[in-house]
Amino acid sequence: MGKVRVRNFSISLDGFAAGPDQSLDDPLGVGGEDLHRWAFAPDMDPVDKRFADAIMDGIGAWVMGRNMFGPVRGDWPDFDWKGWWGPNPPYHTPVFVLTHHARPSFEMEGGNSFHFVTEGAVAALARAKAAAGDQDVGIGGGASTVRQYLTAGLIDEMHLVVAPILLGSGEPLLAGLDLPALGYAMTDYAPSSRAAHMTLRKV
Amino acid sequence: MGKVRVRNFSISLDGFAAGPDQSLDDPLGVGGEDLHRWAFAPDMDPVDKRFADAIMDGIGAWVMGRNMFGPVRGDWPDFDWKGWWGPNPPYHTPVFVLTHHARPSFEMEGGNSFHFVTEGAVAALARAKAAAGDQDVGIGGGASTVRQYLTAGLIDEMHLVVAPILLGSGEPLLAGLDLPALGYAMTDYAPSSRAAHMTLRKV
Repeated sequence: MGKVRVRNFSISLDGFAAGPDQSLDDPLGVGGEDLHRWAFAPDMDPVDKRFADAIMDGIGAWVMGRNMFGPVRGDWPDFDWKGWWGPNPPYHTPVFVLTHHARPSFEMEGGNSFHFVTEGAVAALARAKAAAGDQDVGIGGGASTVRQYLTAGLIDEMHLVVAPILLGSGEPLLAGLDLPALGYAMTDYAPSSRAAHMTLRKV
Repeated sequence: MGKVRVRNFSISLDGFAAGPDQSLDDPLGVGGEDLHRWAFAPDMDPVDKRFADAIMDGIGAWVMGRNMFGPVRGDWPDFDWKGWWGPNPPYHTPVFVLTHHARPSFEMEGGNSFHFVTEGAVAALARAKAAAGDQDVGIGGGASTVRQYLTAGLIDEMHLVVAPILLGSGEPLLAGLDLPALGYAMTDYAPSSRAAHMTLRKV
Protein backbone atom coordinates (compact mmCIF):
# COMPACT_ATOMS: atom_id res chain seq x y z
CA MET A 1 0.00 0.00 0.00
CA GLY A 2 1.45 3.38 -0.98
CA LYS A 3 1.91 6.24 1.45
CA VAL A 4 0.72 9.82 1.26
CA ARG A 5 3.70 12.16 1.31
CA VAL A 6 4.59 15.83 1.40
CA ARG A 7 8.12 16.51 0.25
CA ASN A 8 10.36 19.58 0.11
CA PHE A 9 7.67 21.86 1.49
CA SER A 10 9.43 25.07 2.56
CA ILE A 11 8.33 27.48 5.26
CA SER A 12 9.90 30.65 6.63
CA LEU A 13 11.09 31.03 10.22
CA ASP A 14 7.81 32.78 10.92
CA GLY A 15 5.88 29.84 9.52
CA PHE A 16 4.68 31.01 6.12
CA ALA A 17 4.56 28.79 3.03
CA ALA A 18 4.03 31.79 0.77
CA GLY A 19 4.44 35.51 1.18
CA PRO A 20 1.73 38.16 0.84
CA ASP A 21 0.19 39.30 -2.48
CA GLN A 22 0.44 36.17 -4.64
CA SER A 23 0.20 36.97 -8.34
CA LEU A 24 1.25 35.76 -11.76
CA ASP A 25 4.59 37.52 -11.24
CA ASP A 26 4.94 36.32 -7.64
CA PRO A 27 3.30 32.89 -7.52
CA LEU A 28 4.69 32.40 -4.01
CA GLY A 29 3.88 35.95 -2.92
CA VAL A 30 6.31 38.76 -2.24
CA GLY A 31 9.59 37.27 -1.02
CA GLY A 32 8.26 33.73 -1.37
CA GLU A 33 10.84 32.69 -3.98
CA ASP A 34 13.46 32.90 -1.24
CA LEU A 35 11.80 29.92 0.44
CA HIS A 36 13.42 27.73 -2.20
CA ARG A 37 16.86 29.31 -2.39
CA TRP A 38 18.25 26.07 -0.91
CA ALA A 39 16.88 24.11 -3.88
CA PHE A 40 18.13 26.38 -6.66
CA ALA A 41 21.58 27.41 -5.50
CA PRO A 42 24.22 26.82 -8.18
CA ASP A 43 26.44 25.23 -5.50
CA MET A 44 23.83 23.07 -3.80
CA ASP A 45 24.59 21.70 -0.36
CA PRO A 46 24.75 17.87 -0.57
CA VAL A 47 22.01 17.55 2.05
CA ASP A 48 19.72 19.86 0.06
CA LYS A 49 20.58 18.01 -3.15
CA ARG A 50 19.67 14.66 -1.64
CA PHE A 51 16.19 15.91 -0.79
CA ALA A 52 15.67 17.85 -4.02
CA ASP A 53 16.72 14.90 -6.17
CA ALA A 54 14.39 12.50 -4.37
CA ILE A 55 11.21 14.54 -4.60
CA MET A 56 9.60 12.35 -7.29
CA ASP A 57 10.92 8.97 -6.05
CA GLY A 58 8.20 6.37 -5.79
CA ILE A 59 5.35 8.82 -6.39
CA GLY A 60 2.63 7.44 -8.67
CA ALA A 61 0.21 10.39 -8.55
CA TRP A 62 0.09 13.96 -7.25
CA VAL A 63 -2.61 16.11 -5.65
CA MET A 64 -2.38 19.89 -5.61
CA GLY A 65 -4.55 22.88 -4.89
CA ARG A 66 -5.72 25.07 -7.72
CA ASN A 67 -3.39 27.94 -6.81
CA MET A 68 -0.44 25.63 -7.23
CA PHE A 69 -1.72 24.77 -10.69
CA GLY A 70 -2.09 28.37 -11.71
CA PRO A 71 -3.14 31.95 -11.03
CA VAL A 72 -6.64 31.69 -12.58
CA ARG A 73 -9.44 32.19 -10.01
CA GLY A 74 -13.17 31.54 -10.33
CA ASP A 75 -14.65 30.08 -13.53
CA TRP A 76 -12.18 29.05 -16.22
CA PRO A 77 -12.42 31.75 -18.91
CA ASP A 78 -10.89 29.19 -21.31
CA PHE A 79 -8.65 26.17 -20.99
CA ASP A 80 -5.45 27.82 -22.24
CA TRP A 81 -3.66 27.76 -18.88
CA LYS A 82 -1.89 24.43 -18.54
CA GLY A 83 0.24 25.02 -15.44
CA TRP A 84 3.44 26.85 -14.59
CA TRP A 85 5.77 24.21 -15.98
CA GLY A 86 5.80 24.35 -19.79
CA PRO A 87 4.94 21.47 -22.16
CA ASN A 88 6.63 18.75 -20.07
CA PRO A 89 5.86 19.24 -16.34
CA PRO A 90 8.14 17.59 -13.78
CA TYR A 91 5.52 15.19 -12.36
CA HIS A 92 5.35 12.48 -15.05
CA THR A 93 2.25 11.02 -13.37
CA PRO A 94 -1.45 11.85 -13.18
CA VAL A 95 -1.95 15.11 -11.24
CA PHE A 96 -5.26 15.78 -9.48
CA VAL A 97 -6.10 19.46 -9.04
CA LEU A 98 -8.57 20.52 -6.32
CA THR A 99 -10.99 23.12 -7.66
CA HIS A 100 -14.58 24.27 -7.36
CA HIS A 101 -14.76 24.73 -11.14
CA ALA A 102 -14.99 21.68 -13.38
CA ARG A 103 -12.67 21.35 -16.35
CA PRO A 104 -11.88 18.46 -18.71
CA SER A 105 -8.75 16.40 -18.09
CA PHE A 106 -5.84 16.85 -20.47
CA GLU A 107 -2.52 15.17 -21.16
CA MET A 108 0.90 16.67 -21.62
CA GLU A 109 4.32 15.37 -22.60
CA GLY A 110 6.30 13.04 -20.36
CA GLY A 111 3.41 11.01 -18.98
CA ASN A 112 1.77 14.02 -17.31
CA SER A 113 -2.00 14.22 -17.16
CA PHE A 114 -4.10 16.77 -15.29
CA HIS A 115 -7.49 16.01 -13.75
CA PHE A 116 -9.78 18.49 -12.03
CA VAL A 117 -11.63 17.29 -8.96
CA THR A 118 -14.66 19.23 -7.71
CA GLU A 119 -15.76 16.69 -5.08
CA GLY A 120 -13.25 17.77 -2.40
CA ALA A 121 -9.94 16.72 -0.91
CA VAL A 122 -10.95 13.23 0.20
CA ALA A 123 -12.28 12.37 -3.25
CA ALA A 124 -9.15 13.75 -4.91
CA LEU A 125 -6.95 11.62 -2.67
CA ALA A 126 -9.02 8.51 -3.41
CA ARG A 127 -8.61 9.09 -7.15
CA ALA A 128 -4.88 9.72 -6.74
CA LYS A 129 -4.45 6.54 -4.70
CA ALA A 130 -6.27 4.54 -7.36
CA ALA A 131 -4.06 6.05 -10.05
CA ALA A 132 -0.87 5.47 -8.03
CA GLY A 133 -1.55 1.79 -7.39
CA ASP A 134 1.23 0.43 -5.20
CA GLN A 135 3.17 3.69 -5.41
CA ASP A 136 2.92 6.71 -3.13
CA VAL A 137 0.79 9.80 -3.54
CA GLY A 138 2.48 13.20 -3.31
CA ILE A 139 0.62 16.20 -1.93
CA GLY A 140 2.21 19.10 -3.72
CA GLY A 141 0.63 22.06 -1.92
CA GLY A 142 -0.10 24.83 -1.36
CA ALA A 143 -0.45 25.45 2.32
CA SER A 144 -4.24 25.26 2.50
CA THR A 145 -4.25 21.92 0.67
CA VAL A 146 -1.61 20.46 2.99
CA ARG A 147 -3.50 21.81 6.02
CA GLN A 148 -6.70 20.09 4.87
CA TYR A 149 -4.98 16.73 4.64
CA LEU A 150 -3.06 17.20 7.89
CA THR A 151 -6.22 18.13 9.75
CA ALA A 152 -7.87 14.98 8.42
CA GLY A 153 -4.82 12.92 9.45
CA LEU A 154 -4.41 11.73 5.86
CA ILE A 155 -0.71 12.51 5.40
CA ASP A 156 1.66 9.69 6.37
CA GLU A 157 4.95 11.55 6.08
CA MET A 158 5.78 15.23 5.68
CA HIS A 159 9.20 16.67 4.93
CA LEU A 160 9.37 20.37 5.80
CA VAL A 161 12.23 22.74 5.09
CA VAL A 162 12.68 25.74 7.38
CA ALA A 163 14.29 28.49 5.33
CA PRO A 164 16.17 31.18 7.26
CA ILE A 165 13.98 34.00 5.99
CA LEU A 166 11.12 36.13 7.30
CA LEU A 167 7.95 36.67 5.28
CA GLY A 168 5.88 38.55 7.84
CA SER A 169 2.52 37.57 6.42
CA GLY A 170 1.09 35.28 3.77
CA GLU A 171 -0.02 31.67 4.02
CA PRO A 172 0.80 30.03 7.36
CA LEU A 173 1.30 26.26 7.25
CA LEU A 174 1.05 25.04 10.83
CA ALA A 175 -0.78 27.84 12.69
CA GLY A 176 -3.56 26.42 14.82
CA LEU A 177 -2.71 22.78 14.06
CA ASP A 178 -1.83 20.58 17.04
CA LEU A 179 0.36 18.09 15.20
CA PRO A 180 1.07 15.74 18.14
CA ALA A 181 -2.68 15.58 18.81
CA LEU A 182 -3.18 14.76 15.12
CA GLY A 183 -0.76 11.86 15.54
CA TYR A 184 2.45 13.33 14.13
CA ALA A 185 5.96 13.04 15.55
CA MET A 186 9.33 14.39 14.43
CA THR A 187 11.39 11.58 12.96
CA ASP A 188 14.31 13.24 11.21
CA TYR A 189 16.33 16.45 11.35
CA ALA A 190 18.92 17.17 8.67
CA PRO A 191 20.42 20.66 8.56
CA SER A 192 22.16 22.03 5.52
CA SER A 193 24.11 25.21 5.06
CA ARG A 194 20.97 26.89 3.67
CA ALA A 195 17.97 25.34 5.43
CA ALA A 196 16.82 22.97 8.16
CA HIS A 197 15.11 19.81 6.91
CA MET A 198 12.62 18.20 9.29
CA THR A 199 10.53 15.12 8.68
CA LEU A 200 7.30 14.29 10.51
CA ARG A 201 5.56 10.95 10.45
CA LYS A 202 2.14 9.77 11.52
CA VAL A 203 2.82 7.34 14.37
CA MET B 1 25.04 52.86 23.88
CA GLY B 2 24.13 49.28 24.76
CA LYS B 3 21.80 47.11 22.69
CA VAL B 4 18.70 45.18 23.72
CA ARG B 5 19.22 41.52 22.99
CA VAL B 6 17.42 38.20 23.08
CA ARG B 7 19.77 35.24 23.06
CA ASN B 8 19.35 31.48 22.83
CA PHE B 9 15.59 31.68 22.71
CA SER B 10 14.36 28.28 21.55
CA ILE B 11 11.15 27.52 19.68
CA SER B 12 9.72 24.31 18.29
CA LEU B 13 9.11 23.70 14.57
CA ASP B 14 5.49 24.61 15.21
CA GLY B 15 6.54 27.89 16.79
CA PHE B 16 6.08 27.37 20.52
CA ALA B 17 8.45 28.73 23.17
CA ALA B 18 6.87 26.52 25.84
CA GLY B 19 4.59 23.52 25.78
CA PRO B 20 1.12 23.23 27.32
CA ASP B 21 0.41 22.95 31.07
CA GLN B 22 3.33 24.86 32.61
CA SER B 23 3.86 23.94 36.26
CA LEU B 24 6.49 23.72 38.98
CA ASP B 25 7.47 20.30 37.61
CA ASP B 26 7.32 21.44 33.98
CA PRO B 27 8.37 25.10 33.98
CA LEU B 28 8.49 25.02 30.17
CA GLY B 29 5.27 23.02 29.85
CA VAL B 30 4.89 19.42 28.78
CA GLY B 31 7.70 18.56 26.38
CA GLY B 32 9.21 22.04 26.71
CA GLU B 33 12.51 20.80 28.16
CA ASP B 34 13.28 19.30 24.75
CA LEU B 35 13.52 22.82 23.36
CA HIS B 36 16.92 23.07 25.01
CA ARG B 37 18.32 19.62 24.26
CA TRP B 38 20.89 21.35 22.01
CA ALA B 39 22.21 23.33 25.01
CA PHE B 40 22.48 20.44 27.47
CA ALA B 41 23.79 17.57 25.38
CA PRO B 42 26.88 15.96 26.94
CA ASP B 43 28.54 16.05 23.50
CA MET B 44 27.62 19.58 22.51
CA ASP B 45 27.90 20.57 18.87
CA PRO B 46 30.57 23.30 18.53
CA VAL B 47 28.04 25.68 16.94
CA ASP B 48 25.63 25.16 19.84
CA LYS B 49 28.46 25.59 22.33
CA ARG B 50 29.53 28.88 20.81
CA PHE B 51 26.04 30.31 21.30
CA ALA B 52 25.50 28.78 24.73
CA ASP B 53 28.83 30.03 26.05
CA ALA B 54 28.20 33.57 24.83
CA ILE B 55 24.77 34.09 26.37
CA MET B 56 25.99 36.42 29.13
CA ASP B 57 28.66 38.26 27.12
CA GLY B 58 28.41 42.01 27.44
CA ILE B 59 25.05 41.95 29.24
CA GLY B 60 24.82 44.45 32.10
CA ALA B 61 21.21 43.83 33.14
CA TRP B 62 18.37 41.41 32.40
CA VAL B 63 14.61 41.76 32.06
CA MET B 64 12.28 38.79 32.42
CA GLY B 65 8.61 38.04 32.84
CA ARG B 66 7.31 36.82 36.14
CA ASN B 67 6.74 33.24 34.87
CA MET B 68 10.40 33.02 34.01
CA PHE B 69 11.23 34.06 37.55
CA GLY B 70 8.97 31.46 39.10
CA PRO B 71 5.69 29.57 39.24
CA VAL B 72 3.98 31.83 41.81
CA ARG B 73 0.89 33.60 40.37
CA GLY B 74 -1.12 36.48 41.80
CA ASP B 75 -0.18 38.13 45.11
CA TRP B 76 3.08 36.95 46.68
CA PRO B 77 2.01 34.72 49.62
CA ASP B 78 5.50 35.34 51.06
CA PHE B 79 8.91 36.21 49.66
CA ASP B 80 10.43 32.73 49.98
CA TRP B 81 10.61 32.04 46.24
CA LYS B 82 13.88 33.42 44.92
CA GLY B 83 13.96 32.00 41.41
CA TRP B 84 14.69 28.65 39.81
CA TRP B 85 18.46 28.95 40.01
CA GLY B 86 19.63 28.33 43.59
CA PRO B 87 21.68 30.74 45.72
CA ASN B 88 23.93 31.93 42.88
CA PRO B 89 21.87 32.55 39.69
CA PRO B 90 23.66 32.64 36.33
CA TYR B 91 22.97 36.32 35.57
CA HIS B 92 25.50 38.11 37.81
CA THR B 93 23.76 41.43 37.07
CA PRO B 94 20.63 43.24 38.20
CA VAL B 95 17.53 41.38 36.96
CA PHE B 96 14.24 43.25 36.47
CA VAL B 97 11.14 41.09 36.80
CA LEU B 98 7.87 42.25 35.20
CA THR B 99 4.96 41.70 37.57
CA HIS B 100 1.65 43.21 38.60
CA HIS B 101 2.46 42.50 42.25
CA ALA B 102 5.01 44.65 44.04
CA ARG B 103 7.79 43.02 46.03
CA PRO B 104 10.97 44.36 47.62
CA SER B 105 14.24 43.95 45.77
CA PHE B 106 16.74 41.42 47.10
CA GLU B 107 20.32 40.44 46.44
CA MET B 108 21.85 37.03 45.93
CA GLU B 109 25.35 35.66 45.57
CA GLY B 110 27.50 36.40 42.55
CA GLY B 111 26.40 39.97 41.94
CA ASN B 112 22.79 39.00 41.29
CA SER B 113 20.01 41.31 42.41
CA PHE B 114 16.29 41.01 41.66
CA HIS B 115 13.97 43.98 41.24
CA PHE B 116 10.22 43.83 40.68
CA VAL B 117 8.73 46.32 38.25
CA THR B 118 4.99 46.98 38.30
CA GLU B 119 5.03 49.95 35.89
CA GLY B 120 5.16 47.85 32.71
CA ALA B 121 7.63 46.67 30.09
CA VAL B 122 8.85 50.08 28.96
CA ALA B 123 9.62 51.15 32.53
CA ALA B 124 11.42 47.88 33.22
CA LEU B 125 13.57 48.32 30.13
CA ALA B 126 14.42 51.90 31.12
CA ARG B 127 15.55 50.73 34.56
CA ALA B 128 17.55 47.89 33.03
CA LYS B 129 19.25 50.24 30.57
CA ALA B 130 20.18 52.58 33.41
CA ALA B 131 21.60 49.68 35.40
CA ALA B 132 23.50 48.29 32.39
CA GLY B 133 25.21 51.58 31.56
CA ASP B 134 27.27 51.06 28.40
CA GLN B 135 26.56 47.35 28.40
CA ASP B 136 23.68 45.53 26.71
CA VAL B 137 20.33 44.55 28.19
CA GLY B 138 19.23 40.93 27.84
CA ILE B 139 15.54 40.08 27.53
CA GLY B 140 15.33 36.63 29.06
CA GLY B 141 11.76 35.66 28.27
CA GLY B 142 9.27 34.13 28.29
CA ALA B 143 7.41 34.38 25.05
CA SER B 144 4.89 37.01 26.09
CA THR B 145 7.65 39.28 27.40
CA VAL B 146 9.65 38.96 24.18
CA ARG B 147 6.48 39.56 22.13
CA GLN B 148 5.78 42.77 24.04
CA TYR B 149 9.22 44.16 23.29
CA LEU B 150 9.17 42.96 19.66
CA THR B 151 5.79 44.58 19.07
CA ALA B 152 7.15 47.84 20.47
CA GLY B 153 10.24 47.54 18.24
CA LEU B 154 12.47 47.69 21.32
CA ILE B 155 14.64 44.64 20.63
CA ASP B 156 17.78 45.34 18.59
CA GLU B 157 18.92 41.77 18.03
CA MET B 158 17.24 38.42 18.57
CA HIS B 159 18.88 35.02 18.33
CA LEU B 160 16.30 32.25 17.93
CA VAL B 161 16.95 28.53 17.96
CA VAL B 162 14.57 26.29 16.06
CA ALA B 163 14.57 22.91 17.79
CA PRO B 164 13.47 19.92 15.70
CA ILE B 165 10.55 19.06 17.96
CA LEU B 166 6.77 19.48 17.93
CA LEU B 167 4.92 20.89 20.94
CA GLY B 168 1.43 21.15 19.45
CA SER B 169 0.25 23.88 21.77
CA GLY B 170 1.61 26.19 24.43
CA GLU B 171 3.13 29.66 24.10
CA PRO B 172 3.65 30.79 20.50
CA LEU B 173 6.47 33.27 19.97
CA LEU B 174 5.93 34.79 16.53
CA ALA B 175 2.24 34.12 15.75
CA GLY B 176 0.55 37.26 14.49
CA LEU B 177 3.75 39.34 14.46
CA ASP B 178 4.82 40.79 11.11
CA LEU B 179 8.54 41.00 11.78
CA PRO B 180 9.58 42.68 8.51
CA ALA B 181 6.89 45.32 9.09
CA LEU B 182 8.30 45.80 12.61
CA GLY B 183 11.71 46.44 11.06
CA TYR B 184 13.43 43.08 11.52
CA ALA B 185 15.55 41.20 9.00
CA MET B 186 17.35 37.86 9.11
CA THR B 187 21.07 38.43 9.46
CA ASP B 188 22.56 35.06 10.35
CA TYR B 189 21.81 31.37 9.96
CA ALA B 190 23.99 28.80 11.71
CA PRO B 191 22.79 25.22 11.76
CA SER B 192 24.10 22.67 14.22
CA SER B 193 23.51 18.95 14.39
CA ARG B 194 20.73 19.56 16.93
CA ALA B 195 19.09 22.89 16.09
CA ALA B 196 18.95 25.76 13.61
CA HIS B 197 20.24 29.08 14.94
CA MET B 198 18.81 32.20 13.32
CA THR B 199 19.58 35.81 14.20
CA LEU B 200 17.30 38.75 13.45
CA ARG B 201 18.31 42.37 13.66
CA LYS B 202 16.38 45.62 13.62
CA VAL B 203 17.48 47.35 10.43
